Amino acid sequence: MIFGAIEAGGTKFVCAVSDENLNIIERVSIATTKPEETMKEVYAFFDRYEVDSIGIGSFGPIDVNPKSATYGSITSTPKLAWAHYPFLDEMKKRYDIAYAFTTDVNAAAYGEIKKGVAFGSNSCIYITVGTGIGAGIVIDSKIIHGFGHPEAGHISVQHHPNDQFDGLCPYHTSCLEGLASGPAIEKRWGKKAQELEKTHQAWEIEAYYLAQALVDYTLVVSPDKIVFGGGVMKQSQLYPLIFAEFKKLMNEYVATPLLEDYIVPCGLGDDAGITGCLLLAMDALETAIKK
Amino acid sequence: MIFGAIEAGGTKFVCAVSDENLNIIERVSIATTKPEETMKEVYAFFDRYEVDSIGIGSFGPIDVNPKSATYGSITSTPKLAWAHYPFLDEMKKRYDIAYAFTTDVNAAAYGEIKKGVAFGSNSCIYITVGTGIGAGIVIDSKIIHGFGHPEAGHISVQHHPNDQFDGLCPYHTSCLEGLASGPAIEKRWGKKAQELEKTHQAWEIEAYYLAQALVDYTLVVSPDKIVFGGGVMKQSQLYPLIFAEFKKLMNEYVATPLLEDYIVPCGLGDDAGITGCLLLAMDALETAIKK
Repeated sequence: MIFGAIEAGGTKFVCAVSDENLNIIERVSIATTKPEETMKEVYAFFDRYEVDSIGIGSFGPIDVNPKSATYGSITSTPKLAWAHYPFLDEMKKRYDIAYAFTTDVNAAAYGEIKKGVAFGSNSCIYITVGTGIGAGIVIDSKIIHGFGHPEAGHISVQHHPNDQFDGLCPYHTSCLEGLASGPAIEKRWGKKAQELEKTHQAWEIEAYYLAQALVDYTLVVSPDKIVFGGGVMKQSQLYPLIFAEFKKLMNEYVATPLLEDYIVPCGLGDDAGITGCLLLAMDALETAIKK
Repeated sequence: MIFGAIEAGGTKFVCAVSDENLNIIERVSIATTKPEETMKEVYAFFDRYEVDSIGIGSFGPIDVNPKSATYGSITSTPKLAWAHYPFLDEMKKRYDIAYAFTTDVNAAAYGEIKKGVAFGSNSCIYITVGTGIGAGIVIDSKIIHGFGHPEAGHISVQHHPNDQFDGLCPYHTSCLEGLASGPAIEKRWGKKAQELEKTHQAWEIEAYYLAQALVDYTLVVSPDKIVFGGGVMKQSQLYPLIFAEFKKLMNEYVATPLLEDYIVPCGLGDDAGITGCLLLAMDALETAIKK
């Protein structure tokens, strides 16, 4: 058996193939330019293997509703060349095999609960804080999709009293992504996150926003584990600040697990997404065989 | 087969028994006073039947984690006589049968998706707006529990610019329940919700808070249907105001289903909870037999 994975990001596509034990045989990174260019390289990679199934974790928003006419498409992305691109249909035209199709963050959440830091948990939320903020939720080994997929990076947060920055989100005035993504940090302070000192006020404000979101996620979903990924979350000084703010906001209303065990950095690092995609490919093949 | 149900509220316990088709044979309403008094009447009711299993939907917070030592207990409720009451253990001592144990709102969510207005949906959130605000989530026929149960009535909302009221929640400064529950409306305006005119400014402010919560729930869980219950939501003039505010806040970021189909009053009315409890009793018996 050979499983394939595509972690389709807004900057790069990571493609990989693995054996049946999920050992990666080869992986490539392809720049995300236009569909016709990027997909040509994707095909060139997979053409060299007899892949049995492929798991796709894509940037979004995407259509994940199998009952929808545009299922498997990218929808209204600001990356205009990719808007309404029928990703899954195009893949199926090229390779008539089994597929899984979900968001990049859902794939990462799946990777983390099956093979990463959330292994053994019944449910987890994976949140990436980088160019954007997104979240994926897995409960009882199932990715949470309803009429669409979560866009939990856009929930509303209270403005920090000392923060004069208006936020970057073109859709919402006070959403988490607009106030706490990597580009928001850079715009607010005139420096990239990784260039700011570890004692900079930026981190307290960042933690203030992230903790609010985690409290709301906890109140709505009550997951067993919250897992952080993405470039901004490599700043380890953020964690104690988030714990302190979370405690203050929750104010002991809900007795959560010990925060140091509950809110954790991802275990698979930058491989969370691709691992999740491979696992989903394996599941997709199993489902197809059962049918 | 005889199924039993207990909808355990802070004001009253509704107990019911049904036949195997869930036709209710008898139901009683018992005042919630102290456990020893209330439970005596609960036992008196069920003693008269040969009940095969009982579904319990309780006010909370409660311990719904089967791995926990205090599973089946009420936890830190402000109703002090009931704090840490081992509800499920006491029931088991009296009747050694199969049980389901969850929150009142989870039971109502289950009732609505199996027999109510969310029938045919894959997932739904049920929100009650009354003495408190609570929510239950069902996805793929499963009630969402993680380390605990959702307490989604306590998520943070932005203060309405014209609202001088500070909120009633003793735990949180800007939470939905504190600003939008029935008692919050009464305290803010000096009149009970049902005594306020349908054109009163109160409803616009109420819709402002509820819409914020629905947008956040939508972004986090993306359910197929949002179902409203509880006394305050009998004010039908609220719905168009909520739709308008929801549209403004979401700002077309996520393409939701038509709001008139997506956000709806409950179909089972005041029977949502008891119906859900009976359904859960039926499931519990089935699970017990399989074992």
